[in-house]
Amino acid sequence: MSDEPSAERLAALEARLRLVEDQLELHRLINTWGLAADTGNAEAAASLFADDGVLESDLSYLVGPDAVRSMITSDGQQALIEQGSAHIPAFPVLEVHGDEASASGYTTVFRHTEAGYEIWRVSANHWTFRRTPEGWRLTKRTNHVIDGGTEALELLAKAFDQRG
Amino acid sequence: MSDEPSAERLAALEARLRLVEDQLELHRLINTWGLAADTGNAEAAASLFADDGVLESDLSYLVGPDAVRSMITSDGQQALIEQGSAHIPAFPVLEVHGDEASASGYTTVFRHTEAGYEIWRVSANHWTFRRTPEGWRLTKRTNHVIDGGTEALELLAKAFDQRG
Amino acid sequence: MSDEPSAERLAALEARLRLVEDQLELHRLINTWGLAADTGNAEAAASLFADDGVLESDLSYLVGPDAVRSMITSDGQQALIEQGSAHIPAFPVLEVHGDEASASGYTTVFRHTEAGYEIWRVSANHWTFRRTPEGWRLTKRTNHVIDGGTEALELLAKAFDQRG
Repeated sequence: MSDEPSAERLAALEARLRLVEDQLELHRLINTWGLAADTGNAEAAASLFADDGVLESDLSYLVGPDAVRSMITSDGQQALIEQGSAHIPAFPVLEVHGDEASASGYTTVFRHTEAGYEIWRVSANHWTFRRTPEGWRLTKRTNHVIDGGTEALELLAKAFDQRG
Repeated sequence: MSDEPSAERLAALEARLRLVEDQLELHRLINTWGLAADTGNAEAAASLFADDGVLESDLSYLVGPDAVRSMITSDGQQALIEQGSAHIPAFPVLEVHGDEASASGYTTVFRHTEAGYEIWRVSANHWTFRRTPEGWRLTKRTNHVIDGGTEALELLAKAFDQRG
Repeated sequence: MSDEPSAERLAALEARLRLVEDQLELHRLINTWGLAADTGNAEAAASLFADDGVLESDLSYLVGPDAVRSMITSDGQQALIEQGSAHIPAFPVLEVHGDEASASGYTTVFRHTEAGYEIWRVSANHWTFRRTPEGWRLTKRTNHVIDGGTEALELLAKAFDQRG
C-alpha cells in the first residue's frame, strides 16, 4: 500500500470505521432493552423493533412494535416493575454483514424480593437486525431460558453457524 | 462526497474515530471501578474521579477523590474484600457530547459466603463524566439498589432523557 | 497538524483504528468462550487458544488446544450442559501492546437446578493474548473463584500492574 493518501485508502478506513460504529450501535440497541423494560418505557422498547420485528420467547410470541408496547404496559410487566427487576445483558458476540447483523449471548433477570434478590431467568438469546433509514432495528429476538433443554442450546449455537 | 482525499473527509473520519475511542475509554473507566473496589486499590479507585467528583448511593455520599480513597480503605470495605466480593458491571448505554458524557446501566455485587455466593446488591446507576487534560473523569456516579422504589427507576430512566 | 491530507495523518488514523478493532476482536474472543463451553462446541473452544495456550484454574491446568477440546467433551462438562449452564463474561478491562494484549475481569457461571438458578462460580480472570497470522489467540487464561483468598485478588490486581 502506498504511503500517499489515496481514495482507496480513505475508503477502506471509512468502511472499517463504519463496521466498528455498527457494532457499538448494535450493542447499544441490545443494552437499551433492559432499561426500557425495567422502567416501563413502552415507547423506547417498541422503537427498538422493525415494523415486522418479532420478540419470541418461552413466555410469548409478539410481532411488531405495537405488540411490544402492549407487553410493556401489561399488568404482568407493571407488577414486575413494582417489585423491582433488572434485565441485565451480558456482552454478546456480534456479526455484521452489510445491512444485516446478528448477535448471540446471555441475559439475566434479577427480581427483588423480601428475602433479597432472586435469579428469575438466565436466558440464551439470538438477535437479528436490519439497517433502516432510521438506524439499526431488531427484526427478531429469540429468547429461551437455559434449562438443559435443546431450545437454549440451539440459540447459543447460532453464533458458530454464522462463521462457516 | 468526492472520491478524492480531502481535508474535510479526513477531519470527519478523525471526529468519528474519536467518538468511538471516547466510548471505549468511558467503558474502561466504569469497568475499572470493580477491580479497584474488590482489590482494595484506593489510589486506582480515587483516580477515576474528578476533583469535584461525587459518589452518591443509598449507602453514602462522597465528594472528591480523598473521600473515595477513605471509603476503599475503610473497615467495612476491607471486611468485604476479606470475605470475597465481585462488583460486576453490566454493559451500559453511553452518551458522549463533546467533553461531557453520561451512562446508564446496572451493576451487581456478589459476596462469597460459607453457603456459596450471595447477591448482595443489584443496582441502577447513572454516571456523568468530564474530559480533562488527563483523560475522562467521573463527575458523578449515582447508584441505588433496585428495590421497587422510584429512586432506581429514575436513574435508569435518565438514559431516555438524554436522547430527547 | 496541517489541514491537508498527509501520509502521516492517514497512518495515525489507521493505527488508532487498528487499536479499536483489536479491542473489539479481543472482547469477541473472551465472549465466545461461554458460548462454546455451554453448547459443548469443543472445536470452537479449542480454536481460541494458541498452540501453547494455557487454561489454568482452581479446577485444572490445561496446555494446548487438544487439552481444551478434551475438557469440553469430558463427562463432567457434558453433565453440566445437560443440567443447563451459562458461563457469563462481564465487560473486562483490556490492554493492547502491539502484538500482545491482556485483560482482567469477572466471569460468573449459573447452573440450572430443580429449585431455580444456582450461582456456581464467581471468578476473577486474567487473560493474555498474542496476535497470530490467523488472528488473536489466547496464550493464557487464569481463572480463580472469588473466595476471599489471595489468588483471585492477585488476578484482578494485574489490571493495575500493566499501567505502571
